[in-house]
Amino acid sequence: MKKKRATSTDKRIVLYDSTLREGDQSAHINFSKEDKLRILEKLDAFGMDYIEGGWPGANPKDTAFFQEAVRLKLKKARLTAFGMTRRPDRSASRDPGIQTILRSGAPVATLVGKTWDLHVKEALRVPYEENLRMIGDSIAFLKKRLDEVFFDAEHFFDGYVSNPNHALRCIQAAEEAGADCIILCDTNGGMIPERLAKIVREVSSVIKTPLGIHAHNDSDLAVANSLAAVSEGVVQIQGTINGYGERCGNANLCSVIPNLQFKMDMPCMPKERLRSLRECSRFVAELANQIPDRQRPYVGENAFSHKGGIHVSAVTKNPRTYEHIPPEAVGNQRRFLVSDVSGKSTINEKAKQFGLDLRRKKGAAQEIMDTMKEMEKKGYRYEGADASFELLMRKALGKRQKFFNLVGFRVIDEKREEKEPPYSEATVMIEVEGRVEHTAAEGEGPVNALDNALRKALEKFYPRLGSVRLMDYKVRVLPSGEGTGSHVRVLIQSGDGTRQWSTVGVSYNIIEASWQALVDAVEYKLHMRPKRASKT
Amino acid sequence: MKKKRATSTDKRIVLYDSTLREGDQSAHINFSKEDKLRILEKLDAFGMDYIEGGWPGANPKDTAFFQEAVRLKLKKARLTAFGMTRRPDRSASRDPGIQTILRSGAPVATLVGKTWDLHVKEALRVPYEENLRMIGDSIAFLKKRLDEVFFDAEHFFDGYVSNPNHALRCIQAAEEAGADCIILCDTNGGMIPERLAKIVREVSSVIKTPLGIHAHNDSDLAVANSLAAVSEGVVQIQGTINGYGERCGNANLCSVIPNLQFKMDMPCMPKERLRSLRECSRFVAELANQIPDRQRPYVGENAFSHKGGIHVSAVTKNPRTYEHIPPEAVGNQRRFLVSDVSGKSTINEKAKQFGLDLRRKKGAAQEIMDTMKEMEKKGYRYEGADASFELLMRKALGKRQKFFNLVGFRVIDEKREEKEPPYSEATVMIEVEGRVEHTAAEGEGPVNALDNALRKALEKFYPRLGSVRLMDYKVRVLPSGEGTGSHVRVLIQSGDGTRQWSTVGVSYNIIEASWQALVDAVEYKLHMRPKRASKT
Repeated sequence: MKKKRATSTDKRIVLYDSTLREGDQSAHINFSKEDKLRILEKLDAFGMDYIEGGWPGANPKDTAFFQEAVRLKLKKARLTAFGMTRRPDRSASRDPGIQTILRSGAPVATLVGKTWDLHVKEALRVPYEENLRMIGDSIAFLKKRLDEVFFDAEHFFDGYVSNPNHALRCIQAAEEAGADCIILCDTNGGMIPERLAKIVREVSSVIKTPLGIHAHNDSDLAVANSLAAVSEGVVQIQGTINGYGERCGNANLCSVIPNLQFKMDMPCMPKERLRSLRECSRFVAELANQIPDRQRPYVGENAFSHKGGIHVSAVTKNPRTYEHIPPEAVGNQRRFLVSDVSGKSTINEKAKQFGLDLRRKKGAAQEIMDTMKEMEKKGYRYEGADASFELLMRKALGKRQKFFNLVGFRVIDEKREEKEPPYSEATVMIEVEGRVEHTAAEGEGPVNALDNALRKALEKFYPRLGSVRLMDYKVRVLPSGEGTGSHVRVLIQSGDGTRQWSTVGVSYNIIEASWQALVDAVEYKLHMRPKRASKT
Repeated sequence: MKKKRATSTDKRIVLYDSTLREGDQSAHINFSKEDKLRILEKLDAFGMDYIEGGWPGANPKDTAFFQEAVRLKLKKARLTAFGMTRRPDRSASRDPGIQTILRSGAPVATLVGKTWDLHVKEALRVPYEENLRMIGDSIAFLKKRLDEVFFDAEHFFDGYVSNPNHALRCIQAAEEAGADCIILCDTNGGMIPERLAKIVREVSSVIKTPLGIHAHNDSDLAVANSLAAVSEGVVQIQGTINGYGERCGNANLCSVIPNLQFKMDMPCMPKERLRSLRECSRFVAELANQIPDRQRPYVGENAFSHKGGIHVSAVTKNPRTYEHIPPEAVGNQRRFLVSDVSGKSTINEKAKQFGLDLRRKKGAAQEIMDTMKEMEKKGYRYEGADASFELLMRKALGKRQKFFNLVGFRVIDEKREEKEPPYSEATVMIEVEGRVEHTAAEGEGPVNALDNALRKALEKFYPRLGSVRLMDYKVRVLPSGEGTGSHVRVLIQSGDGTRQWSTVGVSYNIIEASWQALVDAVEYKLHMRPKRASKT
């Protein structure tokens, strides 16, 4: 009775997104109801098959979410409500949790139930037979009333290792009750692919219901485990965007999806959709208030970035030499990191990106390279500061405008109490076309005070700076051995609501380094034409 | 001729760490020479078998690093120099790169060479036969002069898919030249475990030299690919701490090592060592100036954190219910997001290390734990600041002496010329046993000025501070989104010629954070008994 292994000609893999439940459970994420509704629509447009909205009844937020979510016209995805099998002391029809699922209005339910004998004994504390009835009753009851019912077999792999007979009987109970898909869960995330694949293979020979996989990343193997299960015939993958989830997170769909597409020849969505993968990842990170992981496969800022002359020149000739897929296929882009080892080819690539024409001035590329090397010797790095690099290029091309002159500034930090931080105040005097502005501001620390004073002074002349915000501030102490007398490099990320850009400053004085980055940030904004692409 | 698959009874897997080369190549990491030396000693103590120090000759930093590194007495690890096979137009003996490896003084060399026909044709532009000679000559030449020579077969898997014959001949050339290990590299990170395992299996049937694996994480599968290779008999794993590396990084040894130990029954170090895994991960993150990934398997802050009543109560009864391994086994700890219960053992361990007896004061361990939690909430981290942690313990035990009172300080930065950095000056007023000292100093930036003024004032009372120097100064902006208004953590390393110690400070004001770390640094020195072991 062994099922055929999935191949590229089989029915495509079904995507089940749990960002709104599992992702929301991660220690530092807390979506609002509005966030959840926006993500639901985004993931629907992206092409998920099922979107688990949450656990109705578990908290007021999820209950309210379902009330609004069921009214949305989704293009493709089916909204799914999560819940537990009935309690030991209730019938399914009178179980409050199961009632809440029905009331949620979602057309699909996913019920989680115990399959590990340890949990049945120590957590549920019911006889094995009762656990089987809890599973069977709950699914049968909902199956009559909903379009589809899935069974999440919690801790299935640990259960199968501990007591294969009971674990199998649990999912057989789900099968007999009419579950549309049985999802094998590696709840503790402890599996390795080899062992997991063997178990899926054994289960496949017994269970005829379509199988799914739900993997956690505690062993850094959630993506690999999901793919291993697919190779053994599993047809549904549960995961989350960016792998958000409890502890170490869930299977990262932003890796699973392109791996299926490009590495296993099992596409789960049209190619055009996949081009919005990175945008999708960014969108969720934004609403989750998480700094996007730059190293993240496929979608990270550095996923296709190249450093070093050899790599850059090889990639320029033939991208395959150092890229496993074309970055555009997932909506990402190739980045050449400008660094002391890069050459003219990188500079030309960058200029093109900035919309600057180096041929307009003879020797410009060489001049830029020389300046860059000079700056890098002083500790400047442009890998993370495209806006400063564009300003440097503009200067070489005679296209950098000066928007103000500094007459002077003073920053004072004064501490009078051992337990209290110092009070910080800055005064700034600038001059714009003959008009002088002299002003002052306080701040949370000297750099903040200086930033406040500078922008206060400039907004008088350039009101559009009003929308500029400092998004991130980084300080790096440069190779050292001289303690606080060393040089520091400051990286600043700024934004104006629609665009983001990064600037750099270097000095032995942190105030000076910050000042340079602040000035670049402001001047970049003033150079910006209305419809410029974002630079990060 | 097929080799036996590795099993738990085989020789243990050899760990090859490339944090100092591959990690240093990651887009946002730039270790100083001093960082590299500290990491080398840390990873040696941790238990790595080989530590790749870098590419001597590729840049002045790496060259200088090897000059000092070869003089260190490593406990176990072998220092390894990286380089390329000879150039097409040179003999190995006259190749400048190969000469530099010899001059570095490292006992082991790892040579990387081309094995993908595409690269031989498009990048090297030499006949296949010449590429084979380049590999063979270079290895044979170094093999006569060094203890061990490894061959990194660049792009081996892509090469094998494209032209298996040439790829195999390349590593056969390495084998015939006497390479001690041939490492199959997934340089572009595009492999999936199934396909990779099949290739390793085929290679194993031809090559008798021990094999290694070097995986990149572009498909989110570097750890899985490394384990798959081990299952096929590979004996060396190359990777980096925290998976730092170009693009999406390298195989994360912080996941590979515990997976081998706990999941595959192939320990690569004694259990006690593994307990410092998390500390090791933190240490490297700190020096790399990277925010540690909280979701990171095994070592992340959230890796064993439990939210929600059901999980917490189940885990309290039996940790196995929701934990794949005991967190202490990798030096991590269980976290309940409401209240924490663990950590006492760590505190006791630390106290012993500091020579403090916690039994002398009832409830001291608890008090220290509470204080520590309080401080960690504010952003303090003691992994890299043992001296501050010892002072915290002393305070709880009533054994922290106060050596001076601050009356007040003022720091002024004044800039009057656009091209000149600000002039920094600090005034400090302190009081020691009724005597007030009011003094001033200038400095290279505000923190340096403050440091100078503080020590000028204190040396009057405590001349032994004269030998104290600031060795290193690090600033970390804490998770943010609020630009320059965010909190910063300052780490300072001080030394007095024979000993070194590290201290920490946190505030939204960088002057205040630096002040705290400076005060701890000075007070730690004043507490020191003459023959204390060094703390870093």
